Amino acid sequence: MKLVRYGDKGAEKPGLIDASGQLRDLSAHVKDLDGAAYAPESLKKLAALDPASLPAVSGKPRFGAPVTGISKFVAIGLNYSDHAKETGNPIPAEPIFFLKANTALCGPYDQVEKPRGSTKLDWEVEIAAIIGTRAKYVSEADALNHVAGYAICNDVSERNFQIERLGQWTKGKSHDTFGPVGPWLVTKDEIPDVQNLSMWLDVNGQRRQTGSTATMIFSMAKCISYVSQFMTLLPGDIVTTGTPPGVGMGMKPPTFLNVGDVVTLGIERLGEQRQEIIEA
Amino acid sequence: MKLVRYGDKGAEKPGLIDASGQLRDLSAHVKDLDGAAYAPESLKKLAALDPASLPAVSGKPRFGAPVTGISKFVAIGLNYSDHAKETGNPIPAEPIFFLKANTALCGPYDQVEKPRGSTKLDWEVEIAAIIGTRAKYVSEADALNHVAGYAICNDVSERNFQIERLGQWTKGKSHDTFGPVGPWLVTKDEIPDVQNLSMWLDVNGQRRQTGSTATMIFSMAKCISYVSQFMTLLPGDIVTTGTPPGVGMGMKPPTFLNVGDVVTLGIERLGEQRQEIIEA
Repeated sequence: MKLVRYGDKGAEKPGLIDASGQLRDLSAHVKDLDGAAYAPESLKKLAALDPASLPAVSGKPRFGAPVTGISKFVAIGLNYSDHAKETGNPIPAEPIFFLKANTALCGPYDQVEKPRGSTKLDWEVEIAAIIGTRAKYVSEADALNHVAGYAICNDVSERNFQIERLGQWTKGKSHDTFGPVGPWLVTKDEIPDVQNLSMWLDVNGQRRQTGSTATMIFSMAKCISYVSQFMTLLPGDIVTTGTPPGVGMGMKPPTFLNVGDVVTLGIERLGEQRQEIIEA
Repeated sequence: MKLVRYGDKGAEKPGLIDASGQLRDLSAHVKDLDGAAYAPESLKKLAALDPASLPAVSGKPRFGAPVTGISKFVAIGLNYSDHAKETGNPIPAEPIFFLKANTALCGPYDQVEKPRGSTKLDWEVEIAAIIGTRAKYVSEADALNHVAGYAICNDVSERNFQIERLGQWTKGKSHDTFGPVGPWLVTKDEIPDVQNLSMWLDVNGQRRQTGSTATMIFSMAKCISYVSQFMTLLPGDIVTTGTPPGVGMGMKPPTFLNVGDVVTLGIERLGEQRQEIIEA
């Protein structure tokens, strides 16, 4: 299934995209797509519905992030060997992770704010897992059993805030709109191999990032297992898993986003996103 | 007002502590103490109640954290000059902050888990603000207007995970039970000067930390204003503001918590906490 939340910000409704690409309303079957909706029993119930029986939604509504009410927005850093290299960092011996503010979460086509004082606004196409069942001290072998599905995440980053403003990366990763996720959550049964998906990102139509989840240093399963050693993941939580090469910081000379720029990005089987940069 | 959430984990009810120290039930007036309950209009409504008219709660129920449904648990680091010194860090030129996992939040008397593989479990008595109104790009002069009240926070830390496990402090700050908050939220009208409160922490009855909010490098107002430049604070969000000297990492030799140890801590006007250390 491709599950979405559509409608105005703060008033999104649950929906699904059927095999023909038609948006259909799920409001009669689930209140919203939060952690509880992504639990295995709930997903089973939704999967048993006949999409043709659901009301078709006309027009082109806005899409929100395909999950709400999250407790955590975890992000793995430097998880593609070529990206670690372009940032001047060694390949990490174990996963690096940080938290993005939950308030950074936004829809896949929402405008992205350039914060006041921002000079180094950057992009990062990533694949994110959305958790379906509580995960604490889970093994790598068991980790994907705790996943409901996957979505694209743009781990928008302000490099000056992240790196030059003392200390912790959270500072450059957490501004409102720094976490576009979607357009939909694709349930994991539709992703035969999460470690073999191509990914790309363009700025104003120029290709900047090209990669594949095949070159992740730590696999999706390893990332989830690892994070679960340090905190308990709850249903709905997002774990985004790092970006392939081609970020602005790594260009020669470094190149960053300005107001009016348009970022488009996609991952095989997971759809595409588009964001325009605006002033905060 | 002293506002509390009492009852079993996950089934807490709202309450208040009256002038005589009696716990009284607020269930008839507010569903739970979340961000919405801490908005100014809601607090005004609660303050207008006659405590004597509220049902007295008998016995000694557990207390949960005095706020639930938070979007963020922000923590300022190295915010007392003597503490920065004991950790071997320079006095920061601007605030350092990170996010604790929301799942770390727990009650003031709950047992604290020593994570698997933990060798350096440490304590940090801190004063936390709980946000009452949305704060984005707020000035230092305006910052405290966005605060609902204050509470004690033990910013429990695993120093090996925080410092020696690659990169981001979040790793050592986020285990379940690493964020005891409470016992109550004291509304800010009862705190005449938030920058002049004494604070202390004992381990097994031995004094380890002694300090005062008077020696914070960045004031409560500055911390909240600063964080709001990087992320939007929502009602209910917690901002804990750093610890005075006396953490285990700073002792000679460094001394950490073991299973069975008991930590007690308090801040003037905000009450006391007690936690026993158990295996995760």
